[in-house]
Amino acid sequence: MDTEVTRREFHRLAAASALAIAARSATSAQDQPAKAAGTLRLGLIGAGGRGTGLLGNTLAIVPNIVVLAICDIVEASAKRAAGLVTGKGLPEPTLYTNGELDWQNMLKRGDLDAVLIATPWHWHTPMGVGAMKAGVIPGIEVPCSLSVEECWQLVDTSEKTGIQCMMMENWSFRSDNLALLNMVRKGIFGQIVHVHCAHSHDCIDHWFFDAQTGADRWPAQFLLKYNRDQYPTHSLGPVLSWCDINCGDRFKSITSTATDEFGIRDMFIRRFGPDHPGAKRTYAQGDIVTSVIRTEMGKTVVVNYDLQLPRPYDNRWMLQGTRGVYSEQRNALYVVGKSPQYHQWEPFPPYEKQYTHKWWAKGGVGDHGGVDGIMLRNFLEAVRNKQPLPIDVYDSVTMSAVVGLSGESIAAASKPIEFPDFTRGKWKTTKPKFALDDRDFAPPPAVTKTANGLLSQTLLLGLPLPPVELKGVEVKITGEPKQYSGWSMSGNEPHHCLFSENDWGIEITVPKGSSGKVSVYAYAPDGQRRQTVAFCNRQPDALDDMTKGMWVEYPFTKEDSAGGVLKIAVHKVEGANCVLSRLRIVIAPN
Amino acid sequence: MDTEVTRREFHRLAAASALAIAARSATSAQDQPAKAAGTLRLGLIGAGGRGTGLLGNTLAIVPNIVVLAICDIVEASAKRAAGLVTGKGLPEPTLYTNGELDWQNMLKRGDLDAVLIATPWHWHTPMGVGAMKAGVIPGIEVPCSLSVEECWQLVDTSEKTGIQCMMMENWSFRSDNLALLNMVRKGIFGQIVHVHCAHSHDCIDHWFFDAQTGADRWPAQFLLKYNRDQYPTHSLGPVLSWCDINCGDRFKSITSTATDEFGIRDMFIRRFGPDHPGAKRTYAQGDIVTSVIRTEMGKTVVVNYDLQLPRPYDNRWMLQGTRGVYSEQRNALYVVGKSPQYHQWEPFPPYEKQYTHKWWAKGGVGDHGGVDGIMLRNFLEAVRNKQPLPIDVYDSVTMSAVVGLSGESIAAASKPIEFPDFTRGKWKTTKPKFALDDRDFAPPPAVTKTANGLLSQTLLLGLPLPPVELKGVEVKITGEPKQYSGWSMSGNEPHHCLFSENDWGIEITVPKGSSGKVSVYAYAPDGQRRQTVAFCNRQPDALDDMTKGMWVEYPFTKEDSAGGVLKIAVHKVEGANCVLSRLRIVIAPN
Repeated sequence: MDTEVTRREFHRLAAASALAIAARSATSAQDQPAKAAGTLRLGLIGAGGRGTGLLGNTLAIVPNIVVLAICDIVEASAKRAAGLVTGKGLPEPTLYTNGELDWQNMLKRGDLDAVLIATPWHWHTPMGVGAMKAGVIPGIEVPCSLSVEECWQLVDTSEKTGIQCMMMENWSFRSDNLALLNMVRKGIFGQIVHVHCAHSHDCIDHWFFDAQTGADRWPAQFLLKYNRDQYPTHSLGPVLSWCDINCGDRFKSITSTATDEFGIRDMFIRRFGPDHPGAKRTYAQGDIVTSVIRTEMGKTVVVNYDLQLPRPYDNRWMLQGTRGVYSEQRNALYVVGKSPQYHQWEPFPPYEKQYTHKWWAKGGVGDHGGVDGIMLRNFLEAVRNKQPLPIDVYDSVTMSAVVGLSGESIAAASKPIEFPDFTRGKWKTTKPKFALDDRDFAPPPAVTKTANGLLSQTLLLGLPLPPVELKGVEVKITGEPKQYSGWSMSGNEPHHCLFSENDWGIEITVPKGSSGKVSVYAYAPDGQRRQTVAFCNRQPDALDDMTKGMWVEYPFTKEDSAGGVLKIAVHKVEGANCVLSRLRIVIAPN
Repeated sequence: MDTEVTRREFHRLAAASALAIAARSATSAQDQPAKAAGTLRLGLIGAGGRGTGLLGNTLAIVPNIVVLAICDIVEASAKRAAGLVTGKGLPEPTLYTNGELDWQNMLKRGDLDAVLIATPWHWHTPMGVGAMKAGVIPGIEVPCSLSVEECWQLVDTSEKTGIQCMMMENWSFRSDNLALLNMVRKGIFGQIVHVHCAHSHDCIDHWFFDAQTGADRWPAQFLLKYNRDQYPTHSLGPVLSWCDINCGDRFKSITSTATDEFGIRDMFIRRFGPDHPGAKRTYAQGDIVTSVIRTEMGKTVVVNYDLQLPRPYDNRWMLQGTRGVYSEQRNALYVVGKSPQYHQWEPFPPYEKQYTHKWWAKGGVGDHGGVDGIMLRNFLEAVRNKQPLPIDVYDSVTMSAVVGLSGESIAAASKPIEFPDFTRGKWKTTKPKFALDDRDFAPPPAVTKTANGLLSQTLLLGLPLPPVELKGVEVKITGEPKQYSGWSMSGNEPHHCLFSENDWGIEITVPKGSSGKVSVYAYAPDGQRRQTVAFCNRQPDALDDMTKGMWVEYPFTKEDSAGGVLKIAVHKVEGANCVLSRLRIVIAPN
């Protein structure tokens, strides 16, 4: 419908204001020299959706740039991309649209500093190698190589020519993943032990096959020919730096196991009927591939390929150390001795805010929630200033090598395969260098400011109550609730609460005539809430919603606080305890 | 502190009323014959915490029972357990406390129908075998065996003696897992393809080692001697029936990979200092073990052992099929073509309610949130009525075999190990028999009733709006928000919302003078919410809370609805869109 928008447009809108800020202060942006080091001369190979998106982001974000050449086998695509360049008032690029090998003529120009490569997978290594041989620094889309042999081609060419090479793995630049990296490097989680990651993204009916007709699109050939983790880099990207891979540790061996193919033909039958040719073919690719990697230093990493079954997008990152654990699915973490309650999750976002990476200080820019702009800026400014690229050739091929290695292991009934040391031993002496951010970070404050300037504190309800740091506010428990701490059958956090078989309550003393909000979070071991809660003199409100993690928020007015005390009454409902696990007080500063 | 209570006490309180109901209607409880088939004669070996808990639950839940014998090497423990029996007015049991082998004398009595075995792991198989040889049906705690050889001992003894044997894996009986089983068997998820499961439970500082002194407790010996998945049954329990293992499919091969041991010594250093003997020893057991099992029919199952690192309890069940996916961590599911929005999670609890297993029709009873009672009732009533046990010997050893097999694979650097077919081919013809529940289940209704009798409907905000089924209620969007559907960078659901760069709003027409509640769920691609929402004439409320999945609920009074229209205004805050993804309306029936 006409009001339907694409993900890209949405993220562009979402990032709009941040983009404005970034543009205003472009010359003072992070990781740029005080004085720009000359005009950057750029080329693009592959002007499809992704290539055009990367170009558009680059033009919007990276100052002092010219785009000299654009190559695509489809002239219309090259022209559309060229339009973006001239639309910015920049000189018209030369187009290379003369067949599959015209990119080689483009690289021969000799006047390019860097080239963005966004072509079908099997072209990534040949084009990257060709660029380096021509003295041009390639930024290659993922995966940069499809076999161990192609990995070595990139490494050897880079080492021989002295030209750097970067795979543009954007998920390494995500705000959440970089904040987590800051936390890891500050030792918050202790020694890192184990990581789980996945690329769970149903691409079957728009990426591999045409959504309307079911006709093959170019990636379909890989499902017909290979059974392996076809796309491991989005899951592994941030994991490399969390685990010091190639800078203190390395991937040593891998086993991979694939399911049979159930989902592809089921999609064709479901959407196009059993007579569609797609429903009658045999596919080599299993639906889910699980790879388990063991590192030289004894960590393990589990990677899941999951691109064919119907499901919401997910990365399922989980990071475990000797002192704590992070779960992306729960958007939560636990740090022993630091988290407010024993064995209880606490929300990750306050930490993400507190440990925000310097690259995100001014917010994201461009596509994928602002990630692509952060990546392109750091890649291209490193090229401009002849600095080391954020992701070097060793990290690039280490992520991509899982494509070939997983195929080998699956073909050998999950036999463990040795993981090549692409650094040839340099991992032992190389120091971590990706996204270094050596500032000090304070832990999240107890009292935070809301978007419209109110002061907010969340109390985990236990005995004794945590200190209330809001000025002029006191909290008192009435009745005799007991404290429960531990783990729940349902796995629903929080695992800590006050409960009673009988009615109990909370009295909150606030400055007379103040206004604000009081929120409660209720929890029971079966994940359901059945008590009734009354706030001040309002009608009781049954907290029986089934959605996990529900806050109920009560605004209070000057009239409510005229007496200086706000009362919360927890009333028993037959068949359950009266349970409240968190209390949030939000109040206007005075 | 004195108000601190144990998990067991908490769950007992939580289950109190359900227990009362179950007791009142015991003779008409599920899976019992109309006429009880005589008194059940029970024995107990191992009267420690768990054994005593099982006995207490049995006495509270299973009618028409006598406990003839109790065995423990500690006389005081046996006496304490006997006190539970006599406290119920039942005859005093004979105690067997004369050393490590007195259980053999107890089994020689010849008058026991069944024996509960809750002893240290290495005694499970010898005692189970001994019971069957004595003609007594053993209910064995987990794991029932520690090696493939012990697995075969149980199978061979059961087949030779014709005496059944059950491992008491209680997580197979959880309400959520059984509801999911009902859904799987109704084909909701299509063909099951892949399952992930884990037993993530920090037992290091209370189970393996004394919390106060760090002294070894009996399970510690296993950390010193073995490197394997020591405890795979809680994770695998429900998975067996989801995947038709031993009844249509079977585990065919397994690879296991362990991390090094980082966490155990770190715990000692952290809690007891570097000079504690525990900090100076070498432990065989790695912190995390990942096993990948492939089935004969091409499914895969990932199992994680995770008992040593500091973290909240978790099972991390994920089930994927050709038509949908379930995630325990998200407490959510997605079914293609059925879930309201494309590629968007929806909450699992409404489905859990709708597909509640018949065993849970009257709620849970006893420990672990009511699970233990459901398990014990079904086990012991099957013994009483000479019916097949809910978990047979083949399923019992299939779960437990992972202990030995994972050790083999880890010792061989993750080499794939063949999984024995304990059924000797019977898996091909055996039909599923665990927890059969052949009723019809309707999908969750759009309008549900809250605990205090209000009517509730949740609308996923998109264009067009879903139909409102609440009588006399209409919803109208004001302004021009756009629809966004797709996946989010942060992985925070829902992935579907209405958003705009400008202010917009919602007008809800309700019967004049009615009262109820309106809730909104707000979402932005970075997982944060920065707009301001105003309800009716109340002060604006910044939805800037960082907790994932926050609902904000506004009670409305007769005064609010006097005009017949409730207005929600979404106001822009600099730096983000105005996003709302769900609307819930709760109203008193009229």
